[in-house]
Amino acid sequence: MGSNRSGRRQFLKSAALAGLGAGAARVASGQSAVSEGPPKDTHAHGEPSHLAAPAGRGVTRSITHTTYYTPLAESVGIITPASLHFMQAHSRLPDIDPAKYRLTIHGMVDRPLMLSLEDLKRLPSVSKIRFLECLGNSSPRRHVSKPGSTPVTVQYTHGIMSCSEWAGVPMSVLLKEVGVTKEASWLVAEGSDGSKYTYSIPLTKANDDVLVAYMQNGEPLRPEQGFPARMFVPGFGANHSVKWLRRIMVVDRPYMTWDQSVHHSVPRADLDNKSRWYNFVWPPKSVITRPSAGQQLPGPGYYEITGLAWSGWGKVRKVDVSVDGGKTWKEAKIQDPVLPMAHTRFNFDWTWNGEETVLQSRCTDDRGEVQPTLAEMNRNWGRSEKDRLEPTNSTFHWNAIQPWKIASDGSITDALFA
Amino acid sequence: MGSNRSGRRQFLKSAALAGLGAGAARVASGQSAVSEGPPKDTHAHGEPSHLAAPAGRGVTRSITHTTYYTPLAESVGIITPASLHFMQAHSRLPDIDPAKYRLTIHGMVDRPLMLSLEDLKRLPSVSKIRFLECLGNSSPRRHVSKPGSTPVTVQYTHGIMSCSEWAGVPMSVLLKEVGVTKEASWLVAEGSDGSKYTYSIPLTKANDDVLVAYMQNGEPLRPEQGFPARMFVPGFGANHSVKWLRRIMVVDRPYMTWDQSVHHSVPRADLDNKSRWYNFVWPPKSVITRPSAGQQLPGPGYYEITGLAWSGWGKVRKVDVSVDGGKTWKEAKIQDPVLPMAHTRFNFDWTWNGEETVLQSRCTDDRGEVQPTLAEMNRNWGRSEKDRLEPTNSTFHWNAIQPWKIASDGSITDALFA
Repeated sequence: MGSNRSGRRQFLKSAALAGLGAGAARVASGQSAVSEGPPKDTHAHGEPSHLAAPAGRGVTRSITHTTYYTPLAESVGIITPASLHFMQAHSRLPDIDPAKYRLTIHGMVDRPLMLSLEDLKRLPSVSKIRFLECLGNSSPRRHVSKPGSTPVTVQYTHGIMSCSEWAGVPMSVLLKEVGVTKEASWLVAEGSDGSKYTYSIPLTKANDDVLVAYMQNGEPLRPEQGFPARMFVPGFGANHSVKWLRRIMVVDRPYMTWDQSVHHSVPRADLDNKSRWYNFVWPPKSVITRPSAGQQLPGPGYYEITGLAWSGWGKVRKVDVSVDGGKTWKEAKIQDPVLPMAHTRFNFDWTWNGEETVLQSRCTDDRGEVQPTLAEMNRNWGRSEKDRLEPTNSTFHWNAIQPWKIASDGSITDALFA
Repeated sequence: MGSNRSGRRQFLKSAALAGLGAGAARVASGQSAVSEGPPKDTHAHGEPSHLAAPAGRGVTRSITHTTYYTPLAESVGIITPASLHFMQAHSRLPDIDPAKYRLTIHGMVDRPLMLSLEDLKRLPSVSKIRFLECLGNSSPRRHVSKPGSTPVTVQYTHGIMSCSEWAGVPMSVLLKEVGVTKEASWLVAEGSDGSKYTYSIPLTKANDDVLVAYMQNGEPLRPEQGFPARMFVPGFGANHSVKWLRRIMVVDRPYMTWDQSVHHSVPRADLDNKSRWYNFVWPPKSVITRPSAGQQLPGPGYYEITGLAWSGWGKVRKVDVSVDGGKTWKEAKIQDPVLPMAHTRFNFDWTWNGEETVLQSRCTDDRGEVQPTLAEMNRNWGRSEKDRLEPTNSTFHWNAIQPWKIASDGSITDALFA
């Protein structure tokens, strides 16, 4: 390892900035670290069947947000393809030429670095199958049907969430190469989008399992996922995973970035509406994806209940399912693989007798934390149910148990606020 | 479970054939089991960046075969997206309307069934991350550079192989529903392509882990992967995983289908050229995907050696890497998750001193079986090296250790037959 590290340092030396004043000047040669010409005879990437009519991503747009929703009702398994992955963007997607892409790492470090995409690809790589979930997923506004609003389906209540294999360079490798000073404790990551979206994460997390990712599911990142490279912060709200990553500044405190200190802070009604900053980890959560709201059971008989469970703290230990409105619970079958901070598929055999009932699922993670009911969740966050229902309120880290009501005619609706 | 099974049987009863003479007549209503209208506002599936220039699938065509090759040199991680998955087709791809799709299960069964795609989707589902590898992958013709032939790169030597999450109905569920008779021991699966591609598999395997798959990586099968449904046989040569599956006949012996008895049989030079039929499981195999033939190292220094290992028998136990032409071997880092019959990513830190050398990897699976050298593999199959090199010979289940030669100028070539 010693000789490998010195070899790596030698390679990085040529990429290092003499000083930040050097700006975009690149010392290293423009040559690709490991280059390969295009194949002589390249077949175009495949397309879905024109007869498949695969469910597409739903979309909502506001002045500040464009959001794509993953069609969870159709899902079987745990992998979301890039083409159906959720997205939330706050400004126009940047169109970055990978040959001109640079990532600068500076601040409280011994050796500031500016890296090209080829530099990143030459460094040690790692890949992880992990969920990504917008901190506003399952917000109450998605549970309320109003004229002109999106339909209340699992795609809109829970679809700002996906799970893919993300690959790139461990942040710990980059931080080791720049030599973080003793006093440093946080980093601030900045994107190349119009808003220069910026977010702080603790150095302990950065050194633990954070990636600078340039691949998703075996292909380069899609533009809406941060092409050519993004930060990927497993288990935390997706708001931490800064896309189109251009700069990492190592610092000794969290920065009061606009998104982090204003937009994503959580007011506490129980604390004179002071705001809680820096909410990191997604607590245990689950949802039944089929049968779910907007679907229709054709009649009594056998159905498979299937859904997803996950926790930002680690692995899913178990999922309980209730088919009688929460009176009784039984453990669902958990499907391999059960990976930390990843979607975990559960299945449950059910025979519907044709009577009205309510289906629910409840996740317990491997720390023993249990997914709360809506009332328990509100208590945890010091809020009344009314507060939580107000669409203008911040409604982050929503992990309440999701009830789906089956009517006697087989129609299915959201029963959360019923 | 008892009541669930009877509920399921009731549902399937309506799908059952009164007799095979009923042909395509469908007793069950055309209603979708769980139906959902298209989202009001559907965003088109995403596209790669127009600047990403992602490696495409290579393609070769002959009178009998069209083959797409996965660009392994670019891979990091284990998942192959549907758009880059390999394919081999023997005739024009069928264009099947999913609403008209039917799967017939008959033969030595108590209750023959004809199922629609919606029927399949209503049954219990399962998903598995598994590799799929053409039994002709790494054939010697891919290692020989001739004018007009494909370049010798890892895409062409090893790229008729991919790894995805496949989801569908366990074959065991279908076989239980039709009631296989005591005397039955095999099944014959038939596709809807022009050649009515047909293959036999043992009933023990079918009941163990075979799927009728209708999803790949969270979306409907692509046309080239057998849309709307295929058989998926984990660990076996991909030739067993019959695409566009239309018929399963339960029988009491393997059938001498054309592909299985002629095209895919393996002549044994050591046994008077008698052929060996029914070669099922892919033995342990691995390949270094980067650095690999056709790439160029820009100079001495640090490189990450990365590659894939897999075994049709189960999980990968370890991967050894040699950076000195096989004189010494060291264990590579194995990356989580390590799944049975799935690609497993390995990584190895290496500092190149600028001298000519040869890189190799060697997989050991959890049964203790070790990937052979070329000489050992030829001995296993009773063949001289000359036989194995002859491009017109059958060259199936090729799992020899793959050496890549690094020249002192940093260029990389295939050293298998050097």
